[in-house]
Amino acid sequence: MADQYAHSGEDKRPTETPAIRWEEPPEGPVLVLLDQTRLPAEEVELVCTDAPALVEAIRSLAVRGAPLLGIAGAYGVALAAVRGFDVDEAAAALAGARPTAVNLAVGVRRALAAYRAALAEGGDGRRAAEAALAAARALHREDAEASARMAGHGLALLDELLPAGGHRVLTHCNTGALVSGGEGTAFAVALAAHRAGRLRRLWVDETRPLLQGARLTAYEAARSGMAYTLLTDNAAGSLFAAGEVDAVLIGADRIAADGSVANKVGSYPLAVLARYHHVPFIVVAPVTTVDPDTPDGASIEVEQRAGHEVTEITAPQVSVAGAGGGIAVAPLGTQAYNPAFDVTPPELVTAIVTEEGIVSPVTSEALAELCARARR
Amino acid sequence: MADQYAHSGEDKRPTETPAIRWEEPPEGPVLVLLDQTRLPAEEVELVCTDAPALVEAIRSLAVRGAPLLGIAGAYGVALAAVRGFDVDEAAAALAGARPTAVNLAVGVRRALAAYRAALAEGGDGRRAAEAALAAARALHREDAEASARMAGHGLALLDELLPAGGHRVLTHCNTGALVSGGEGTAFAVALAAHRAGRLRRLWVDETRPLLQGARLTAYEAARSGMAYTLLTDNAAGSLFAAGEVDAVLIGADRIAADGSVANKVGSYPLAVLARYHHVPFIVVAPVTTVDPDTPDGASIEVEQRAGHEVTEITAPQVSVAGAGGGIAVAPLGTQAYNPAFDVTPPELVTAIVTEEGIVSPVTSEALAELCARARR
Repeated sequence: MADQYAHSGEDKRPTETPAIRWEEPPEGPVLVLLDQTRLPAEEVELVCTDAPALVEAIRSLAVRGAPLLGIAGAYGVALAAVRGFDVDEAAAALAGARPTAVNLAVGVRRALAAYRAALAEGGDGRRAAEAALAAARALHREDAEASARMAGHGLALLDELLPAGGHRVLTHCNTGALVSGGEGTAFAVALAAHRAGRLRRLWVDETRPLLQGARLTAYEAARSGMAYTLLTDNAAGSLFAAGEVDAVLIGADRIAADGSVANKVGSYPLAVLARYHHVPFIVVAPVTTVDPDTPDGASIEVEQRAGHEVTEITAPQVSVAGAGGGIAVAPLGTQAYNPAFDVTPPELVTAIVTEEGIVSPVTSEALAELCARARR
Repeated sequence: MADQYAHSGEDKRPTETPAIRWEEPPEGPVLVLLDQTRLPAEEVELVCTDAPALVEAIRSLAVRGAPLLGIAGAYGVALAAVRGFDVDEAAAALAGARPTAVNLAVGVRRALAAYRAALAEGGDGRRAAEAALAAARALHREDAEASARMAGHGLALLDELLPAGGHRVLTHCNTGALVSGGEGTAFAVALAAHRAGRLRRLWVDETRPLLQGARLTAYEAARSGMAYTLLTDNAAGSLFAAGEVDAVLIGADRIAADGSVANKVGSYPLAVLARYHHVPFIVVAPVTTVDPDTPDGASIEVEQRAGHEVTEITAPQVSVAGAGGGIAVAPLGTQAYNPAFDVTPPELVTAIVTEEGIVSPVTSEALAELCARARR
C-alpha cells in the first residue's frame, strides 16, 4: 500500500508553497508535493514516504508537468535509497508511471546512475543514497537555472518576432512554477515579458479534460499579477480570427529527433490555427525533453487516459460520485476517446526555445547539434 | 415574474418526450418544453404559461437550437395572443431573447404576421390568436418535413463525397431532434447514414462550455443505437491527424448572404482543421437560417455569454454553488472570454445542405438563388 498523506497548507502564503520539496523530519526523509489536483480551491501538501506513494501521485496528476516529473522521479529514487527500499524496483515503477513524458525517465535514470556509481566505487548503501539525493538536488537546481535561461531566450525571440511589443500570448495547459524547479517553460517566458512590461495579455486555454489551464495557469497568472483571460479551448479559433493572438507559447512532454512535439492534447489544433493565421507557434522546453531515441512523431507513444475524465467532471469540492468519482455529464455507458497528448509536426513549429538556445527553423540537424552542445 | 413550472417526465419513455409541444389543459393553453439543461440526468418538462417564461427558458438554454428556437418563438407569440397578453410586447421580447439565431426572429415574425393579418381582415382577438397558433403549428410541421429532406440530401452528398462508405463523421454541439420539429439538421444526416447502414462512427465533440455534445448529442446517439464516441473539443486534432475523420457535419445558427456560417463556438477551428487535412466540412441548416440582410461574416453579431460558464462548471446534479451557480474551477476573479458562436468563412465550407438542395461551392450567387427558389 502506497504511503502518502495530506496536510493542509492553509497557514502558508500561496507563494511560499513550492511544487516539490525534500524534507528530513525526525520520522525520516519525505518528499512533499503540492497536490495540484486540489488547486486552486485549496493548497494541500501530499507527503510521500515511499516510491509507490509517489507513483500514485504521478498517476493521479497530483504532481505533473514534464520538468517537475523529472525532478520528482530523481527524488523518488533517492527516497527509496535513503529509506532502504529496493532501488531498482522503485526506479522501474517510477519511470513507467506515465509513458509520454521523457523527463520522468531521464530524472529516474540520473539518480539511479549516481546511486549505482557510488556502489560501484565501493560505497555503502548510505553513501549511495546520498549520491542519489545529491543527483536529485542537482537536477532540481539545474532545472531552475534552465527555466531562467529559457525565459531569457524566449523573451528575446518574442521581441524579435513582434517588434511592436504589447504581446498578446496564447498558452495551453500549465507550464509555470508548478511544473518546474524554477519558473517553468512557456509560462516563464510570458512571466519575463510581463516583468519587462511587454505582455499585454495572456490568453489561457482552460485545457480539457483536466482543466490545468483554468485551475493552474490562471492561478499562477493571478499570483503574478498578469493581465490574463480564460477561454474554452475551442474559443481560441475566434481569437485568432479576430487578430487577438500575437504568438502561441506552449511546453512539451517529448520532442522527437525530427522535431515533432508531443504536448498536452489541444496543442496540435493550436499549431494548425497558428499556421492558418500566420502566428508564431513557439515551443519552450529544456533540452532533456528532446529524445534522440524517438526518431519521429509517429514513434511517440501517446498515453490514453480513462474515459471518465471526459464523461464525468471532477472538481476538488465535489463529493457527488460517478464511476470515476466525478459528476456524470454524458449518458451512462458513453465511450470516450481521451488521448493525453497530441503530436505537432516540426513544419508547424516556428521555434523550439531551450536553455541552450533556440532552434528555428526546426530540423533534425539543428536539434541534434543543440543536444550535442548541451552534452559538452 | 415569468410563470414557468417544472414537472418530471420520469413516467415517460425517453423517445416519447418531444422537445416542444403545445397543450390545452383545462387551466388554459401552455407550451411544454423538455428542459435541456437537465439532460441527460433526467427528463423534466418545463411548462410555460406566458411569453416571459419562454424568454427565460430561451436565455437559460432550456430550449435551444436554431430551428427549435424558431418554432418556440412562433408558439410564444401564439401563447401571448391566446392568453390575451400584449402580443407586440411579447414578440419583441422573444425575438431579442438571443441575438445570433436568426430563426428565432423569423419564427416570431411569422406568427406575428399571421396574427396581424387576421386582425386586419376584421377578425377579433380570438380569431387572430388562432391564426398565430396555426402559423406556429405550420412552422413546426414544415420544420419536421425540412429535416427529412435535409437528411436525404445530406446522405446523398456523403455517399457522393465518400464512395467507400463506412462514414466516420465528426459533429459539434447538438443538432438532432432536440433542436427541431423533426430529427434535426446535421444529426439527421448522421442518423440517415446510420439507418442506411453506412455510418461507421459518430465522433461527438463535448462542446464546452455547456457540454451540449456530451449531454445532448451523446444522449440522442445512444437512443438511436449509433456507434458513437465522445471527445474533448481539443482532441479532434488528433483524430484528423490519425485519418479517423471522413467528414465534419455541423448545423448553423445564422448564414450570411456571402455564405459565412455562424455556429456554436468551436466550429471554426474544426473548419480550419478539416481544410488542413482535406476533409469535407458540411453545414446542414434549413433555408430560414440564411439571412439575406446580413451581408457577411463580419456583420454577424456574436452573443457573448457570462464568464461563469467558463470559470465554473455546472451539472444538473450539483448543488454546490459559485457566483454563477456552479462549481468554481478557476481562481476567484478570473475573467473569461466566452463567445457563444464563431464564424466560418465560406471558403472553408465544402457545402451547405438545406431542405431545398445543396449549395457547393458556397457563393453568394448560389445562396441567393437557393433562397429565391425556396420563396417560390
